Amino acid sequence: MSYAEKSVTVLGLGPMGRALAGALVGARLSTTVWNRTPGRAGDLAARGAVAAVSAEEAVAGSDLIVVCVVDYAAANSILRRDAVTAALRGRTVVNLTADTPNRARDAAAWAARHGIGYLDGAIMTPVPTIGTPAAVFLHSGPEDLHRRHRPVLERLGGTHTYLGADIGRAAAYDLALLDVFWTAMAGYTHALALAKAEGITARELAPFAAGIGAILPPLFEQAARDIDSGSFSGAGNPITSAASSMAHIVETSEAHGIDAGVMRAAERLARRVVEQGHGTDGFSRMADLLTPR
Amino acid sequence: MSYAEKSVTVLGLGPMGRALAGALVGARLSTTVWNRTPGRAGDLAARGAVAAVSAEEAVAGSDLIVVCVVDYAAANSILRRDAVTAALRGRTVVNLTADTPNRARDAAAWAARHGIGYLDGAIMTPVPTIGTPAAVFLHSGPEDLHRRHRPVLERLGGTHTYLGADIGRAAAYDLALLDVFWTAMAGYTHALALAKAEGITARELAPFAAGIGAILPPLFEQAARDIDSGSFSGAGNPITSAASSMAHIVETSEAHGIDAGVMRAAERLARRVVEQGHGTDGFSRMADLLTPR
Repeated sequence: MSYAEKSVTVLGLGPMGRALAGALVGARLSTTVWNRTPGRAGDLAARGAVAAVSAEEAVAGSDLIVVCVVDYAAANSILRRDAVTAALRGRTVVNLTADTPNRARDAAAWAARHGIGYLDGAIMTPVPTIGTPAAVFLHSGPEDLHRRHRPVLERLGGTHTYLGADIGRAAAYDLALLDVFWTAMAGYTHALALAKAEGITARELAPFAAGIGAILPPLFEQAARDIDSGSFSGAGNPITSAASSMAHIVETSEAHGIDAGVMRAAERLARRVVEQGHGTDGFSRMADLLTPR
Repeated sequence: MSYAEKSVTVLGLGPMGRALAGALVGARLSTTVWNRTPGRAGDLAARGAVAAVSAEEAVAGSDLIVVCVVDYAAANSILRRDAVTAALRGRTVVNLTADTPNRARDAAAWAARHGIGYLDGAIMTPVPTIGTPAAVFLHSGPEDLHRRHRPVLERLGGTHTYLGADIGRAAAYDLALLDVFWTAMAGYTHALALAKAEGITARELAPFAAGIGAILPPLFEQAARDIDSGSFSGAGNPITSAASSMAHIVETSEAHGIDAGVMRAAERLARRVVEQGHGTDGFSRMADLLTPR
């Protein structure tokens, strides 16, 4: 049986779930969809998807069940109903719902107890990328299961990276990368507020901020080399100087009445590195400070 | 007199000051250098710079005095000594020292009282870029003074952007851009610690983190358009979903004993946006929350 003859079920029809189901329908897979709140399957059904009336019915016809809901609590409330759990036996769940590595591990243990195949995954790119080469998916879980279902998963578009058998690994990458993303976005929105208080519009600042964004990737690679090698050379950019800039940002923000809690927390960590006698090291020493012994 | 016949003084010979003086010497300007702690001018003197024995002597022979020290407190302790202040009368200081907009404004007022021309500037790129096309300088202060000295400043290499007559503007851009930069770097070092606790090495995470870095510039531009137009569309990526990711990062970090103070502060702001009834808006609404009324 070729992948094109396989049937797939998508549970969860929020914007991301609809995009996933849409990509599968577009790839002419036989696709069944279900959402807890009815009425979300409209255009998918018009394009050929089967709209199931219950989760257990949705699950029953497919080898592979793709789950994409708001968090694992929502996923569990669907999958762990007895009728659904029974219908899942012998099938494989790929859970693309974002949550913590530990919740993925807990779900895998539950699935094993019920004879259900279980893979976890993370979607690293926004809704409009699904079905296009720009989509980025991370996967983890048993390698044989991943290999078996990968041809169908690839119909979601983009690149698919298998991270290994530890079921928590996709969620761990997801959280670490969202940590970079949301912290950077918090810094940017704060910078826009600070700039506005100084009479600089967002559009004036944006091209320069984009320039800062553009220099981050090579610095990320350099810091990773520093950290894995345990050397934290601060040549030309010691962490004392970072701490001094951070203090200027806090001072100027608060003088304008702008909350500087994020930068205060970051400055506190930089100062702790300096207090530990590593003031001439580079900023990458901060990762070492944060790493538990 | 062409710029090549002009003489320039550089006060401050830390790594950045030495790079600035080196670029001027390399451009064959007659360059005088001075540093509070002696013994820093060695290779510059060998290349033809004049090493002055005092700041007042260093200042006396040049139209333009470039200052680059650790902060404005250090700059003031040099410039506001009576002998130096007297020697500066009728000359122009370009202060490339990083500090707050208000300290730049205070220094400009002091300079005006003493008949000294005053420009402020910010260097946005690291030491090795100085004298190369990669350097980025921002300038602010009286336009006629800037125009007069720009040909010499351009010998420092890279691009030079004049931001206007408000002397605090270069420092304000500098702080806003460093806000983006240091917050992003704090997020990345935190992500590396979180990844390590989950068994992921820095080198494994780095290529994906670089991918996150690469998507920031267009998102920065989009957020700027949102903010200047007062629309905060969260289509496909509402701030409730950001807050949920942030909570997962805090939870998983703290379960590993990793300080999550930066993300806690960011999550608090995201929650405040949700509490104000803007949960379906995009993350750019955070800039609006932070902006004082």
